[in-house]
Amino acid sequence: MKPSIPKGMRDFSATEVAKRSYIFDTIKSVFRLYGYQPIETPTMENLSSLMGKYGDEGDKLLFKVLNSGDFTQGVDFSEEQSVAHLATKLCEKGLRYDLTVPFARYVVQHHNELSFPFKRFQIQPVWRADRPQKGRYREFCQCDADVVGSSSLLYEAELVEMVDEVFKRLKINVRLKVNNRKVLSAIAGYIGHPDKMTDITVAIDKLDKIGFDGVKEELLSKGLQSGDVDKLYPVLTLSGSNSEKLQKLSEILSDNEEGQKGIEELNQILAYVGDSADIIDIDLSLARGLSYYTGAIFEVKAIDYSIGSISGGGRYDNLTGIFGMPGLSGVGISFGADRIYDVMTALDLFPSAITESTKVLFANFGYKESIAALSLSRQMRKAGIASEVYPSSDKLKKQFEWAEKKGIRYLVFVGENEINEQAVTVKNIVSGQQAKVSFSELVNFIEGNNL
Amino acid sequence: MKPSIPKGMRDFSATEVAKRSYIFDTIKSVFRLYGYQPIETPTMENLSSLMGKYGDEGDKLLFKVLNSGDFTQGVDFSEEQSVAHLATKLCEKGLRYDLTVPFARYVVQHHNELSFPFKRFQIQPVWRADRPQKGRYREFCQCDADVVGSSSLLYEAELVEMVDEVFKRLKINVRLKVNNRKVLSAIAGYIGHPDKMTDITVAIDKLDKIGFDGVKEELLSKGLQSGDVDKLYPVLTLSGSNSEKLQKLSEILSDNEEGQKGIEELNQILAYVGDSADIIDIDLSLARGLSYYTGAIFEVKAIDYSIGSISGGGRYDNLTGIFGMPGLSGVGISFGADRIYDVMTALDLFPSAITESTKVLFANFGYKESIAALSLSRQMRKAGIASEVYPSSDKLKKQFEWAEKKGIRYLVFVGENEINEQAVTVKNIVSGQQAKVSFSELVNFIEGNNL
Repeated sequence: MKPSIPKGMRDFSATEVAKRSYIFDTIKSVFRLYGYQPIETPTMENLSSLMGKYGDEGDKLLFKVLNSGDFTQGVDFSEEQSVAHLATKLCEKGLRYDLTVPFARYVVQHHNELSFPFKRFQIQPVWRADRPQKGRYREFCQCDADVVGSSSLLYEAELVEMVDEVFKRLKINVRLKVNNRKVLSAIAGYIGHPDKMTDITVAIDKLDKIGFDGVKEELLSKGLQSGDVDKLYPVLTLSGSNSEKLQKLSEILSDNEEGQKGIEELNQILAYVGDSADIIDIDLSLARGLSYYTGAIFEVKAIDYSIGSISGGGRYDNLTGIFGMPGLSGVGISFGADRIYDVMTALDLFPSAITESTKVLFANFGYKESIAALSLSRQMRKAGIASEVYPSSDKLKKQFEWAEKKGIRYLVFVGENEINEQAVTVKNIVSGQQAKVSFSELVNFIEGNNL
Repeated sequence: MKPSIPKGMRDFSATEVAKRSYIFDTIKSVFRLYGYQPIETPTMENLSSLMGKYGDEGDKLLFKVLNSGDFTQGVDFSEEQSVAHLATKLCEKGLRYDLTVPFARYVVQHHNELSFPFKRFQIQPVWRADRPQKGRYREFCQCDADVVGSSSLLYEAELVEMVDEVFKRLKINVRLKVNNRKVLSAIAGYIGHPDKMTDITVAIDKLDKIGFDGVKEELLSKGLQSGDVDKLYPVLTLSGSNSEKLQKLSEILSDNEEGQKGIEELNQILAYVGDSADIIDIDLSLARGLSYYTGAIFEVKAIDYSIGSISGGGRYDNLTGIFGMPGLSGVGISFGADRIYDVMTALDLFPSAITESTKVLFANFGYKESIAALSLSRQMRKAGIASEVYPSSDKLKKQFEWAEKKGIRYLVFVGENEINEQAVTVKNIVSGQQAKVSFSELVNFIEGNNL
């Protein structure tokens, strides 16, 4: 019986870890450059901190941890009305479902230790009992940067620049779609249905996929009048540059105060971001889980590879209200590491150097020779060169194959002759080229990649 | 109601994350230098992979994850005989309890993709439902390096050198205690009780704490004769250098083949490790969960701070046997990050630079000035200097205090005058010193720490 892991979970090989680390490290270094600092929260939160925060569907998708000890104590199984309720009796803890709710909890719990605006980033796994499918896992990493405690649009601009910088470093060409919840609200008012804002935004969010006819059909089914829905068409098909779009929109929504505020915010962000404005598309159909956001809404798409959004975020005016601390505005961005990984794999964007492991393997010719090899290997490492001595005096062919499989670049022979001559034979495993190098020159030779 | 986290779990602040990362990064860089490659396994394993691997006590300490959906299906609560059995009905998954069992599972599951000897490191959290107490958490990080598929003592030597290098880099003075399970077995035979090996090793493992009289008392209570126990005394109090100790031990155990083998292994390791022999103490009382190890046993103690062992490991001849693949010998070392953190905190060993965040804050004097500040801030970042613009034109005192609290080194003023003169005022927040620097010189000035 071959051992296995739970469905939707993954083992990561050394190559995969190296590639994933490359993505995480790139994101982290950009976060740091903008003054965001790392925090970490525990894998398990009190279930009471998580329940009700992600909707009914979310509650079902939470992984719950069985209480330790006698978890049946005080539970009358025959009396329980529902499985969901029984679960809360058996489990006090749940696994982190996202990084936003734990962050809100952290800010409220530690607010006396923090200075606001508080800028944090967090790169940690989250767990969801979703049905696993291609590209969707039950354990996956989120990479979030948020700032809480300021409503300054400079932070929206900062996040836009960070998105630009991260994807420039990863060499992924992207478009950053930007919208504003206030504009969406105004649009709902403009077509005469301020009360149907959710239906309207849910529908227009699908514009890309189902076209305007599809959007119209959906809205008619929600009880909107055909004439009202048609008023959306010119709004959703605004053309021109971002400022041209905003100019036209401003005319359309001229007598809506909230809309004007939203447009002003969008203009402001464009003014703040400098050259990063080049990646921005003002997109009035963008909504992203609207109930959450109150100002800017962001979403990033890769240009050269078709996959869902690879990053997204926005402003939410009441992040910490759910934990009893109202009035703290926040804005954040989240990078989807798995999709970024898929894009980079498909477009062959990972630098080859990142998966390099050991650079030098010393072949093993027996006890005496291995002592000499160990000493040389130590010199390599002192110079920062990853180096190993093959563990036993197996046939050279076997040692060579092991090095080849591990992706090692140089095989170094230290046999009896070499010890007598105080000079090793270095072989480049890929090219097959060989060279004789004195013991004392070896570090320089390897450092210089002279073969 | 202030939100909280489950007992035994921790939030980590930015400073704590920075310090912990320093430890992890140091360990990782040494692991890599010796050719160990990172793998990662999922947080959840099938409970069947974990149960029975850590003894009865371990089974109880496993965190179990409630099945998703209707977890009551097929469970007859009135028929269940025990809480433990009910748990296995309600839960198919458990949280990783250590890194060794998942590693064994990984090796068996992926053995076709691996080339042996396979050297891996793994730095991931593990979870245990232990009673929380000072220094003991329910979620903590393990840092393991293991090699599987070779019985070469070169690997024991490699691990010793890695221990030496890690603690040299962290500036912690350590002693590395080394013993060998074969020697322990021979000692049990030498005093006439080969069958009581476990009792004997459990008792002598406490020699440090309870002294020889305590050890004797414990062994008498286990049914050993006083005369036999007394034969232990000269063995446990061997003095001199490591090779002198081994020489004397070799005479004492002269007619025990297994003992001679163990002594030979210890001598071999001493010969292989080079200068790292300086940190080794051969310690015949060292046992560490003996049932597990079959050859070398390691344990590291900090010299300048009293705390349990901060690293440990050894050789186990049948790591993957539990998953149906016998005959693969392994040897490994594990670093205890939390204790290392405590030692470094107590001895003030963390470099101050690691907790530095943003280096430059541009004060905000209003819209026009912030546009100029944003542009200068971008120049900083292009040069790799972490930089921010304060988000709003608050009173300068407030901006200054925010920078101070965040540990920012330079506050830069870009007001109307500065824009006209194309020169900023730079203030060192700690020293209070100020300087006037032209826009074009600012990057060089900050890079050079000229204030």
